[in-house]
Amino acid sequence: MSEKRVDKEKDFSQWFDSMLEQAQLVDSRYGIKGFVVYRANAMRICKRIYDMLGGELEAKGHQQVLFPLLIPFSSFKKESEHIKGFEDQVFIIREAGGEELEEKLVIRPTSETAIYPMYALWLRSYQDLPFKFYQAVAVYRRETRATRPLLRGREFLWIESHDVFASAQGGLDQVKEDLATCRRVFDDLGLAFIVAEREEFDRFPGADMSVAYDALLPDGHVLQVGTTHFLGQHFTKAYDVSFLDAAGERKTPYSTCFGPGVSRILAAVVATHGDNDGLVLPFGLSEFDVVVIPILYKGVEEKVNARAREVASTLKEKGYSVFLDDSDLTPGKKYFRWETKGVPVRVEIGQREAAQGTVTLFRRDTKKRMTVPADSLAEAIEALRHDILEQLRSRAWATLRERLVVVKDRASMLEASARLAIMKAPYCGARECADSIKEATGGYEVRGRDFEDGTRPKEGCVWCGRPAQRTVYLAKAF
Amino acid sequence: MSEKRVDKEKDFSQWFDSMLEQAQLVDSRYGIKGFVVYRANAMRICKRIYDMLGGELEAKGHQQVLFPLLIPFSSFKKESEHIKGFEDQVFIIREAGGEELEEKLVIRPTSETAIYPMYALWLRSYQDLPFKFYQAVAVYRRETRATRPLLRGREFLWIESHDVFASAQGGLDQVKEDLATCRRVFDDLGLAFIVAEREEFDRFPGADMSVAYDALLPDGHVLQVGTTHFLGQHFTKAYDVSFLDAAGERKTPYSTCFGPGVSRILAAVVATHGDNDGLVLPFGLSEFDVVVIPILYKGVEEKVNARAREVASTLKEKGYSVFLDDSDLTPGKKYFRWETKGVPVRVEIGQREAAQGTVTLFRRDTKKRMTVPADSLAEAIEALRHDILEQLRSRAWATLRERLVVVKDRASMLEASARLAIMKAPYCGARECADSIKEATGGYEVRGRDFEDGTRPKEGCVWCGRPAQRTVYLAKAF
Repeated sequence: MSEKRVDKEKDFSQWFDSMLEQAQLVDSRYGIKGFVVYRANAMRICKRIYDMLGGELEAKGHQQVLFPLLIPFSSFKKESEHIKGFEDQVFIIREAGGEELEEKLVIRPTSETAIYPMYALWLRSYQDLPFKFYQAVAVYRRETRATRPLLRGREFLWIESHDVFASAQGGLDQVKEDLATCRRVFDDLGLAFIVAEREEFDRFPGADMSVAYDALLPDGHVLQVGTTHFLGQHFTKAYDVSFLDAAGERKTPYSTCFGPGVSRILAAVVATHGDNDGLVLPFGLSEFDVVVIPILYKGVEEKVNARAREVASTLKEKGYSVFLDDSDLTPGKKYFRWETKGVPVRVEIGQREAAQGTVTLFRRDTKKRMTVPADSLAEAIEALRHDILEQLRSRAWATLRERLVVVKDRASMLEASARLAIMKAPYCGARECADSIKEATGGYEVRGRDFEDGTRPKEGCVWCGRPAQRTVYLAKAF
Repeated sequence: MSEKRVDKEKDFSQWFDSMLEQAQLVDSRYGIKGFVVYRANAMRICKRIYDMLGGELEAKGHQQVLFPLLIPFSSFKKESEHIKGFEDQVFIIREAGGEELEEKLVIRPTSETAIYPMYALWLRSYQDLPFKFYQAVAVYRRETRATRPLLRGREFLWIESHDVFASAQGGLDQVKEDLATCRRVFDDLGLAFIVAEREEFDRFPGADMSVAYDALLPDGHVLQVGTTHFLGQHFTKAYDVSFLDAAGERKTPYSTCFGPGVSRILAAVVATHGDNDGLVLPFGLSEFDVVVIPILYKGVEEKVNARAREVASTLKEKGYSVFLDDSDLTPGKKYFRWETKGVPVRVEIGQREAAQGTVTLFRRDTKKRMTVPADSLAEAIEALRHDILEQLRSRAWATLRERLVVVKDRASMLEASARLAIMKAPYCGARECADSIKEATGGYEVRGRDFEDGTRPKEGCVWCGRPAQRTVYLAKAF
């Protein structure tokens, strides 16, 4: 592990890459552009994110399924908007075992076109609805933009849920439920995000409404970490999915899909919480919640070691994941190692602690030490568990709020763009204005209206001055 | 759901397929040969099998990682035996996003050729060893034999662990550790299996030793549900994986891989425990451990329903997964539904139970009822949890033992093959004898020596009569 540190404030991009390497999260030397190896420290967090999202989805009535990786081209091409959106990104298979295939196959870029033909077979009656299924898989898109480990890959990890409802309202309610799922999970990861309903020209191919969750990167860019799309009847019609309603009439249902990106959520966790000394993680995400480090002096080794073992086993009994680092490294090297990995709490036990019946706690997020009586250790750790998450979350939201400004006119927009602010601005809805804004600001995009603010601004469009339809977010996107 | 039942004893093959459909495990109408949809009832069990295997592997020092799905052809072809074994089975990608790729890519049929190039980068010193990593993924092989849902697919779910050791002994010990992992997990699933060290001509391409776990199907075929391979230095040499030993000398390490097949373990669970009324599952695998069914009569509905709710909530508090089926279906239809799904215990509460303060328990495995006082319900359920697993496991082992016969000569081998026995027989080691046995018996294969029996038989080879090298299993393989 290199000990060279990069400054996060000065060069986020380089800091991020060095963090992936130093904390042994991903290895980007695999040999196919856009494909990386998820090492154990990354997989542990990804698995936790999968479990959190899957748990929330199941609590809301979803069931986990698994559809094949490969999609027959004849099925892939059925929804016309969808194929236009994805056909120049998919990996194609025409050959297997030395033989030409009868039909070419597509590796899933997303699974609507695998799933809807089966939904057509499964759905019979209104009593079968809603369908609420999800799968936890990787998807494959040959991104033409520059790839970056975790941030933009050609293989990325996500969950995709695909829901079907008897009514349009069922689908629209699902969009809100998915937002609640995201909010819950992001809260537990300490992440802040904005919720933007994308403009029509920026929707998922085949969607009537696209709502996106954008996290903030430290350099001011936003990162789309998930989306929910209301698909109307586009897919159900294209794939002949129908049901008999209570009156015995054949009806076409409505559908939604929800795709939180696990790779990008991991990226957001690393980017949001990390500092120049490494990862910073809440309890439950890092390899251990607590590391116990005995600080040995000649003559008191046994006493200190015995106390350290005792403390480690007490905390294990309480259900924390604990590691007693009694290796031969110096305390300083141990500190460095576990700080890099983002372990939230370090317990230091030296001669003084052993003699006084205390322990010294170091919290990774604030890098502050506190000494507590040994017999209140468990309570102190439990308090830190809550407090560290709360601290990370409120810091993330504070950063987002600090960077967010409201602009009403072109001049203040240009001024704010120069200092990399995220903006809320009145907008007329015209594609041309979005394009002009992007050009004038060096890349600011209309990210869509604040999903939770349905009011119509009184001011004119920030670019053209004509009546504004809605208040939208403007930001540079990763 | 069709109510037509097929007899398991008479036609296992048809029974198995009808079970997959009736218990809504997999849907084989997906439209690509060898690819099926895992429905919620199957995914729940697969996830549990993944967790059990992953948990055992982690307890033994493995860490979960994730390598890319796609493998550059230049890497794939490096180990000469390996490519010979797999080249006529792999799916090939030459095109993405409408463009020809610079190098063709292979979809992983197994991941050695993805992993070893990275191990070459990761491994430096003897202090880094052992490497013990696993991933939980699907792999893709274009089987030329007839595909069957779960039993033989072109996309199948598995875990693969890839371990590296400083010494050959480390690898050989790992083979035994993997066997212990299998034994532990199969015990918890109630499965019986034989452990056979495959003959040289039947090894994994690139292996010095292949140990396979074969479960028994009810029709007498064995099903390979997992393997461990000792790869010697074949892969480490081919991929330039080396380390500096304690004396500073560069050495080539030894490696192993372990591949328990989750799809096939699921198949074995269904096949081994199921009966003509549906799935039979131990606690923890089915959608619910316990279903509570109120049996209503006019006038006592409220009392019975109240008792049913009380019982369901008591059991939930104890940590069981419980469903109170208070739907409008008749009790008979409810019984049918939950028996098909294999829910291990049904609690029936009617007028008599409500009046007497008792509950009636129905266990799915033996289909026996017992009435217990309501206040000892939790103890009775906990006893059933153990007893049902124990019963399933001992029944599976008894069936395997009943079917296993020792044969010493050609005549008794032919006689045993006619009644579909599995055999143990002395064997000389010649490929020609294995081929002759297969032909004479209509398909019996030499499955390899009993891994846990190293003795050399005194009798001559069951086929040619020449001195036998070892006692081997003979069986028809699925």
